[in-house]
Amino acid sequence: MRISVYRTAHFNAAHRLNVTGWPEEKNRKVFGLCNNPNYHGHNYELEVRLSGEVDPVTGFLINLNNLKDIIESQVTTYLDHKNLNVEIAEFADLNPTVENICYVIWTRLRAALEPKYDLSVRLYETPRNYAEYPAL
Amino acid sequence: MRISVYRTAHFNAAHRLNVTGWPEEKNRKVFGLCNNPNYHGHNYELEVRLSGEVDPVTGFLINLNNLKDIIESQVTTYLDHKNLNVEIAEFADLNPTVENICYVIWTRLRAALEPKYDLSVRLYETPRNYAEYPAL
Amino acid sequence: MRISVYRTAHFNAAHRLNVTGWPEEKNRKVFGLCNNPNYHGHNYELEVRLSGEVDPVTGFLINLNNLKDIIESQVTTYLDHKNLNVEIAEFADLNPTVENICYVIWTRLRAALEPKYDLSVRLYETPRNYAEYPAL
Amino acid sequence: MRISVYRTAHFNAAHRLNVTGWPEEKNRKVFGLCNNPNYHGHNYELEVRLSGEVDPVTGFLINLNNLKDIIESQVTTYLDHKNLNVEIAEFADLNPTVENICYVIWTRLRAALEPKYDLSVRLYETPRNYAEYPAL
Amino acid sequence: MRISVYRTAHFNAAHRLNVTGWPEEKNRKVFGLCNNPNYHGHNYELEVRLSGEVDPVTGFLINLNNLKDIIESQVTTYLDHKNLNVEIAEFADLNPTVENICYVIWTRLRAALEPKYDLSVRLYETPRNYAEYPAL
Amino acid sequence: MRISVYRTAHFNAAHRLNVTGWPEEKNRKVFGLCNNPNYHGHNYELEVRLSGEVDPVTGFLINLNNLKDIIESQVTTYLDHKNLNVEIAEFADLNPTVENICYVIWTRLRAALEPKYDLSVRLYETPRNYAEYPAL
Repeated sequence: MRISVYRTAHFNAAHRLNVTGWPEEKNRKVFGLCNNPNYHGHNYELEVRLSGEVDPVTGFLINLNNLKDIIESQVTTYLDHKNLNVEIAEFADLNPTVENICYVIWTRLRAALEPKYDLSVRLYETPRNYAEYPAL
Repeated sequence: MRISVYRTAHFNAAHRLNVTGWPEEKNRKVFGLCNNPNYHGHNYELEVRLSGEVDPVTGFLINLNNLKDIIESQVTTYLDHKNLNVEIAEFADLNPTVENICYVIWTRLRAALEPKYDLSVRLYETPRNYAEYPAL
Repeated sequence: MRISVYRTAHFNAAHRLNVTGWPEEKNRKVFGLCNNPNYHGHNYELEVRLSGEVDPVTGFLINLNNLKDIIESQVTTYLDHKNLNVEIAEFADLNPTVENICYVIWTRLRAALEPKYDLSVRLYETPRNYAEYPAL
Repeated sequence: MRISVYRTAHFNAAHRLNVTGWPEEKNRKVFGLCNNPNYHGHNYELEVRLSGEVDPVTGFLINLNNLKDIIESQVTTYLDHKNLNVEIAEFADLNPTVENICYVIWTRLRAALEPKYDLSVRLYETPRNYAEYPAL
Repeated sequence: MRISVYRTAHFNAAHRLNVTGWPEEKNRKVFGLCNNPNYHGHNYELEVRLSGEVDPVTGFLINLNNLKDIIESQVTTYLDHKNLNVEIAEFADLNPTVENICYVIWTRLRAALEPKYDLSVRLYETPRNYAEYPAL
Repeated sequence: MRISVYRTAHFNAAHRLNVTGWPEEKNRKVFGLCNNPNYHGHNYELEVRLSGEVDPVTGFLINLNNLKDIIESQVTTYLDHKNLNVEIAEFADLNPTVENICYVIWTRLRAALEPKYDLSVRLYETPRNYAEYPAL
């Protein structure tokens, strides 16, 4: 019996969109307001989906309290109330678009979860803009 | 033209997580607060997805009023304001985790729907914890 | 500068509506499905509003982290994953309607908050049924 | 690195469900209140999903401002505050069910988007009834 | 013990904004897209608030099932899937703005509710535009 | 006939909580993670309420398109994608708590609206923390 379970979390962070090495003018043109050198920020809402076989005794795919702890230690504590460009190693040379943040979160969770689980991450930058990795 | 349609519903129920045959201490350790022998409860939110071919005349995959009636007769009336452990036959020997409740609902709907529809059920135990069967 | 601030929280609980001393039949008639002797339950969503003068130095009415801690210690830890009728002293002789639960929460928070704050509590039993004390 | 991005939009419209060529009585029986000859209406909420390869330099699958503009020019401006049966060419001979509106929107967006993007459209007629094309 | 209770409901309807007696051009200028003579529509979401004294025996301000029935008979059944301008007597000479619809609903509920309850009605035309009567 | 109407808007911004003149250590102790010198950010959701007399001819308290334009010119364009501490004059010497941002928005709207309207502003910093001015 293969099933998916979901757990949500949230964090608040500052960022700016900017490609290192591009002239200022090009960055402003491509990223518009999101290129503000003084940063802006978001309430990021995260939805983590695991898929796999339900344990026939417990009826759990995974104990959701364990999943909650993994998300907190790998993602929320790491990103909450941070400046993504300045303080998060993964974005030293990577533009913190919602696509790239989503992928970084997926990578951190993938490393912390048992391989038997399929993993998918959806990240809401706003209620109107969001990304999902891997592609649905 | 293959499309999916969705219909939502909701019900309120009490439950506890407990594996019959396990010692009390093990149940408390694995299920924590959810093992409370006096029960706790949830507002369960249900999302039912059917997929198939649209009828070229009516433009319907299924008449959503019919789907609404099937969900009410098979799921809502059966589970609403019930104690899942005590009153629902399927959970006599099955732990009422969100995974198992989701699967039980899928089974009841599957039996009531024409085989031409693909069926998927998502069940929200809280806005933060939910399950989907079959696995996405 | 008088302002209001809000903080939300949530807990899951089981309950039944029942007036001790009424014949069974009357309880069934008045409370319907909510009278189920085996209990049902809800995801209660709580909105706490404080009103008062903003501190001109900090710009806080209250440090919302302090308010969060007070809500957790006075309400969430006390009610979460509980059977209200069986385990909560205030409902030993009080019907746990959304009105009465709302008032009990207000009373517990009132005792823990400085008198300089005006306090109002809104409690969602479902997204469709809720109460607010004091009356708006 | 294949990823999905989502963008939402909304529009308000009037419609009625009716099959041209059917006798009045049959239309009334099949479509019920939705057959009202004087029309009724909805706040339609639209979720557009694109999938494809992220540009390794910008970190964008697509510039969401461009996607926003395409949705506005192809869908929102075209459908907002309109009577779908009377004013929208695609529904001259097509029943404006949520399934058919969803497909019409997909067709309009497909024609305006580069072929390298996979496209999926979800349309909420109400928070309880919605459709998705192609089928999930 | 004075408290407020809330109950929500929803209905879908078509309307247009138009002042009878004004020249076409003025109506178009003042009401813009909302003046479309072919109508547009909305999912109206309704929030009804009653305030008064809780019954010390039942713990109810009002039995919410009774309130639900009153809302259905007075409002939902009357307005759902209707064209407000054409089919609802109150709007024969009254522009169906969200303000006026809100007031009409308040009037209908006021007549059906016992005078001991204070009544307030909030009506969402969209998630972004809404009205409340009486004024807060 | 006195009524209230509401209009919502949103903007994204970076900020940090910090009292100029306090030692670093005190700022860190009082404001915790929110004192991060590199900033963090939020999706701010704004709800504006006007109260007054409905125009008996148009049925409008205010044309909501006008209100929308005033909110955009006075608030959204001014604050969106900005660093509140660095770029917004009002916060040069004022800590950008949700209380103070709410009050600044109220002041800007008050100056742009006709005196006949009563004005209230609610500002969501997150779905869990929000403020309202004047106090309810």
